[in-house]
Amino acid sequence: MRRKDFLKIGGMLAATASQASLYGSPISKASKANAPIDFIHDGLLLSPKEYASLLMKLADEGKIKPDYYSNGGVVEELEAKFASLLGKESAVFMPTGTLANHIAIRQLAGQNRRVIVQEQSHLYNDTGDCAQTLSGLTLIPLGTNTVEFSLDDVDSIVKKTQGGRVATRIGALSIESPVRRQKDQLFSFDNVRQLTEYAKSKDIKTHLDGARLFVQPVHTNVSVIQYGAPFDTIYTSLWKCFNAASGAVLAGSKRFTENLFHERRMFGSGLPNAWAFAAVALYYADSFADEYKQAWTKAQQLFTLLRKDERFSIAQFEHGSHIVELTLKNANPTRFKEALAKTNLELPVPIKNSFLLKVNPSLNRETPQNLASRFLAALI
Amino acid sequence: MRRKDFLKIGGMLAATASQASLYGSPISKASKANAPIDFIHDGLLLSPKEYASLLMKLADEGKIKPDYYSNGGVVEELEAKFASLLGKESAVFMPTGTLANHIAIRQLAGQNRRVIVQEQSHLYNDTGDCAQTLSGLTLIPLGTNTVEFSLDDVDSIVKKTQGGRVATRIGALSIESPVRRQKDQLFSFDNVRQLTEYAKSKDIKTHLDGARLFVQPVHTNVSVIQYGAPFDTIYTSLWKCFNAASGAVLAGSKRFTENLFHERRMFGSGLPNAWAFAAVALYYADSFADEYKQAWTKAQQLFTLLRKDERFSIAQFEHGSHIVELTLKNANPTRFKEALAKTNLELPVPIKNSFLLKVNPSLNRETPQNLASRFLAALI
Amino acid sequence: MRRKDFLKIGGMLAATASQASLYGSPISKASKANAPIDFIHDGLLLSPKEYASLLMKLADEGKIKPDYYSNGGVVEELEAKFASLLGKESAVFMPTGTLANHIAIRQLAGQNRRVIVQEQSHLYNDTGDCAQTLSGLTLIPLGTNTVEFSLDDVDSIVKKTQGGRVATRIGALSIESPVRRQKDQLFSFDNVRQLTEYAKSKDIKTHLDGARLFVQPVHTNVSVIQYGAPFDTIYTSLWKCFNAASGAVLAGSKRFTENLFHERRMFGSGLPNAWAFAAVALYYADSFADEYKQAWTKAQQLFTLLRKDERFSIAQFEHGSHIVELTLKNANPTRFKEALAKTNLELPVPIKNSFLLKVNPSLNRETPQNLASRFLAALI
Amino acid sequence: MRRKDFLKIGGMLAATASQASLYGSPISKASKANAPIDFIHDGLLLSPKEYASLLMKLADEGKIKPDYYSNGGVVEELEAKFASLLGKESAVFMPTGTLANHIAIRQLAGQNRRVIVQEQSHLYNDTGDCAQTLSGLTLIPLGTNTVEFSLDDVDSIVKKTQGGRVATRIGALSIESPVRRQKDQLFSFDNVRQLTEYAKSKDIKTHLDGARLFVQPVHTNVSVIQYGAPFDTIYTSLWKCFNAASGAVLAGSKRFTENLFHERRMFGSGLPNAWAFAAVALYYADSFADEYKQAWTKAQQLFTLLRKDERFSIAQFEHGSHIVELTLKNANPTRFKEALAKTNLELPVPIKNSFLLKVNPSLNRETPQNLASRFLAALI
Repeated sequence: MRRKDFLKIGGMLAATASQASLYGSPISKASKANAPIDFIHDGLLLSPKEYASLLMKLADEGKIKPDYYSNGGVVEELEAKFASLLGKESAVFMPTGTLANHIAIRQLAGQNRRVIVQEQSHLYNDTGDCAQTLSGLTLIPLGTNTVEFSLDDVDSIVKKTQGGRVATRIGALSIESPVRRQKDQLFSFDNVRQLTEYAKSKDIKTHLDGARLFVQPVHTNVSVIQYGAPFDTIYTSLWKCFNAASGAVLAGSKRFTENLFHERRMFGSGLPNAWAFAAVALYYADSFADEYKQAWTKAQQLFTLLRKDERFSIAQFEHGSHIVELTLKNANPTRFKEALAKTNLELPVPIKNSFLLKVNPSLNRETPQNLASRFLAALI
Repeated sequence: MRRKDFLKIGGMLAATASQASLYGSPISKASKANAPIDFIHDGLLLSPKEYASLLMKLADEGKIKPDYYSNGGVVEELEAKFASLLGKESAVFMPTGTLANHIAIRQLAGQNRRVIVQEQSHLYNDTGDCAQTLSGLTLIPLGTNTVEFSLDDVDSIVKKTQGGRVATRIGALSIESPVRRQKDQLFSFDNVRQLTEYAKSKDIKTHLDGARLFVQPVHTNVSVIQYGAPFDTIYTSLWKCFNAASGAVLAGSKRFTENLFHERRMFGSGLPNAWAFAAVALYYADSFADEYKQAWTKAQQLFTLLRKDERFSIAQFEHGSHIVELTLKNANPTRFKEALAKTNLELPVPIKNSFLLKVNPSLNRETPQNLASRFLAALI
Repeated sequence: MRRKDFLKIGGMLAATASQASLYGSPISKASKANAPIDFIHDGLLLSPKEYASLLMKLADEGKIKPDYYSNGGVVEELEAKFASLLGKESAVFMPTGTLANHIAIRQLAGQNRRVIVQEQSHLYNDTGDCAQTLSGLTLIPLGTNTVEFSLDDVDSIVKKTQGGRVATRIGALSIESPVRRQKDQLFSFDNVRQLTEYAKSKDIKTHLDGARLFVQPVHTNVSVIQYGAPFDTIYTSLWKCFNAASGAVLAGSKRFTENLFHERRMFGSGLPNAWAFAAVALYYADSFADEYKQAWTKAQQLFTLLRKDERFSIAQFEHGSHIVELTLKNANPTRFKEALAKTNLELPVPIKNSFLLKVNPSLNRETPQNLASRFLAALI
Repeated sequence: MRRKDFLKIGGMLAATASQASLYGSPISKASKANAPIDFIHDGLLLSPKEYASLLMKLADEGKIKPDYYSNGGVVEELEAKFASLLGKESAVFMPTGTLANHIAIRQLAGQNRRVIVQEQSHLYNDTGDCAQTLSGLTLIPLGTNTVEFSLDDVDSIVKKTQGGRVATRIGALSIESPVRRQKDQLFSFDNVRQLTEYAKSKDIKTHLDGARLFVQPVHTNVSVIQYGAPFDTIYTSLWKCFNAASGAVLAGSKRFTENLFHERRMFGSGLPNAWAFAAVALYYADSFADEYKQAWTKAQQLFTLLRKDERFSIAQFEHGSHIVELTLKNANPTRFKEALAKTNLELPVPIKNSFLLKVNPSLNRETPQNLASRFLAALI
């Protein structure tokens, strides 16, 4: 794929279109009374102006102690905060989730170079095979085209591995939840418990790819800390829910994290200054959980209102989290999307007559009633 | 080295101390009438507040079109600008110089896995052996403890390589200039021309690590474009001279750069948003050359004034660039440094009686006469 | 697994037990009138004495020109012979099949680091993940627990690969036939043709792991050369059917093979002298096909005779080759095996009441009638 | 280099020429009364016929218990013998020295990926950069163009390594002695003791590449066991002094060696049968030391005799072992070499007027007096 094309495909086109319109030119702004709302992102998509304002505010309040090569200062504060939110001893800032996941399994596996992952995981599909190419790991994909894999799947791989003519060992097992390629459905906690217990009994280390982990508690009765407890390491994104321009944290034991800054720099990711990412994520660190809870409640109210009109049907997924499917009957989805965009409300690109709506805190900018009215008005 | 210790060692302590004092608390600010000046950095060390203000200004002026995973928007504008400044067809943003250099030699070398580097280079000493560990390259260090290596050095390695019992080939040759570990002295252009011509004749690709390349023209009669012309690829830092919080560009032919965004992302460096780095570097892209020229002229005037007092002696290095050595006679260097710091002027940590002063655009904030007075006053 | 244990497990115990008894002590020899026959190996298991005699004979006849680091001499003759038997331009000696397969896919894949393999293949299960660990390749296993994978399986992986967020490419596709872990069943030629044609259209290179390839033609109407023609490269073992103590060849175009001796030596497999392997394989190169054909015919006659006794049942596999399943009714398999062993006829370790008999040229040492009598006699 | 060319270059031409003439055709044999002697090899160059005869003899004597994938049988006996000769707990058979050295440093280094080697070592020059390419190690070459490196050299690298901006660690230090590229001169034992003690204090593991180690004791007062004692691991060749067609052993602690057979097989070097190498090396294992001692004594006598004629001068190297330099005055070296070859005595290819003669047990086939006569006669 050429670079130009990269910006055009799939939801990405939606995203950039959305960005362009959200940040808008002075003219388009004049015509938009409403605060920007979208059903596309995990968090708030801050415009450069909003982002810079927030940095100004935080700097004015003395809340941005600069870091030195991503160590110290506000980066250290951020790491402490997320270690605590994730229930681990320690955490390290990483510029991207791709790197956080890669370094996690690279370190956990050590000399035992087989790593079990979901066949649908980001690690297996969307990282350019980084762990295989740069670290020589063997990723073993389980659970083809589904959210989870089972204890039997894992046990069968463990046995096959033992039966090979040359000794190899499974060093780590990684679980992604929510699963992006499966509409952000959740890997069930019962299964997590079984799998991590089994892994421990076989001396296999475990990693949680929780890029969007902080939406989970609203959809289960399991807290972030409970869910993450059985894992050796957890990655969560600072960019998805916590509105940083970039960034991730990788959390684990003190022993695990203490020298990771060297590994990070070896990979070319020791950003000379990361405070512009860390300060923003830290600002939203405590509030996201409540903001999202509130947004989800509003979304439920919105859906109830919409269901009263038979042209709308809304479906939730079996193990779903923040994504729901809105289907239109007797209405043109493209025109519907365009009409909403004019009111500063962005939907993702439709698939036939349906939209995969992602609920996020931008919903809190409007009442469910007003949102419903705008949806209805856009049908015409 | 533990992470805490990392912040304490060598010039890094100076740097963070400097940052702390420059950004200062309201109290220390009150006691400082002067604009901050330092002899430590390559560019201006913007405080978070200054940085955020600049982002605000640029956002207000509509100059920050956001990028998508470091593609498009202001990142694309930055790449075009630096391609032009470096005289290459195309350029790609990278979050760090460590990655830019690594990817450059990885791609240039291809299957010919020996890469010639300076024994004193950043690539050989300060990257955690990234190219060897992650890409399986063999870095061959030449020019022990000196700035340059010679054509003979290279020819001898080429011959040794041909004489090995198993075929190996030299795929790339990298030159760093200025050389950080050699007081930023310059690799002579005559030598560059000889070496790159020889390399071409042997089908060896060439890379220029020009982290601080843009200070060179003031100290030679060779422009950046002339100097870089014989190389296949050039890296320059956006952080050192161009005041971005982080960032680098890697420039070369269109063919070389067109798919590098995939490689960048595979390494875990596809920042979801890089506009906060790109916009700032772009802002300073055109002005640095003049600013530094002016600063260097002022520095020369300052040194002339200081030399009038026999307690100061100032030495330049044979192939020197922006670093000069200031030696004190009959004066306590630590007290001198502290006295200057009180006037908001930061020196690096002294080595015995000497300071390695780095000249940068912060000097333009003061007249040479006033600077000299402050230096003299600090002697007491 | 500890080294001692390695010798004890599974069929390997049988193999070494068999070796011990075949080579035997003077005493056991005295009690054995019959020439050694076994249903375990692919070829003849030459004892050191037989092997040394053959080398003597060949040396006396001037047929062993020594090689130099596995180049030249009788190694070169062997390579030419096998290139011709396999229908390729050229071939290179490799000490093991593990290395031949590894180097094949490493070279074919180049920078396109995904390689499709059978989930049941030797490459995926029995090489200690060599290609992943040493070459950073990503092996993608298809066809779980079966002999073949389908065009749809491959197409689906090609599409998934294209849909990843970071570009990766499938560089090679490897097919093993017969499939050792599936009772040496054959990958159908129709499927091979479809798959290799598809691969060619996608610029994916193809490799055939034909360790035991030369038994195939007896079980299909496709010659070795026809079967191998659509593949870029073919490996076949010298040890399995051709009785060399060790060794393999990797065949392909001249361009593919011409510098492989360097790669081989880099891997530590440039044996200073390989003539002791090459000369023996060359000796059997032309005769194996006929010898095996004759052995299979005799085996059919034997099975017909055995089926007359209801205590024997014999089953062939759907896509089977030289392995058949002999099941005993109302008879103790261990005692049966022991009784036959006393007549210098070795069976593999039974699984419950069944034996997986492998037919090989050692059967030619006896008439089917006499074999059948010995089988019957051993039932008591 | 193309494969054909590989056989032609340097001493290799001599070697193969020598092989051809030594094994000879019936015709050339007729004209050669003398037993073959050469000044080229480390051991005896057995012809295929001699080699096969020896295997026959050993098989007849019941001395070849076959191995299974290079485990057990005569391979195990060989390993025990060489562990004992080298003074280590345990040893593992490897098919080549290239692999033995590679696996040694790969295992010793573990995660500490810098490995110190001689700039003139086989590992650094003649292995196709295997350790760098396949294991991602960084080999740091010390002692440019000389036999040894010093404690200061190592200490300076240790310090530089500590001073890098990203943590790296030196995991292993390898010493080759005798040094092939330096005329088989010896690395002094005093230096070995200092270096290994220093290494131990820094937790750096040590490896001895002793391909030709068993010639050392004749030239020093240090036994093989004494010399090897301070090292963690030792490799010695079975091919060079012990006349096996191929092979090496890697010796160390039990813990170090116990799972190496898996690593060996992963590299593609688990030869299905290695007894044809192991049995021969085992046969010569105990006798080489005495045979070489005797040969060296005879060589000294020969040199004394030759020095009486002023057309011969003979020089030994400062730290020399089995190689001496014979220079001709007023005589044509090519004609001299040819004349000797007619008497079944092979010299290496001359460099100008000089020959680098390597002393080996083939000298024991003739008295010094007769040898001297043949040398003199060949001058005409």
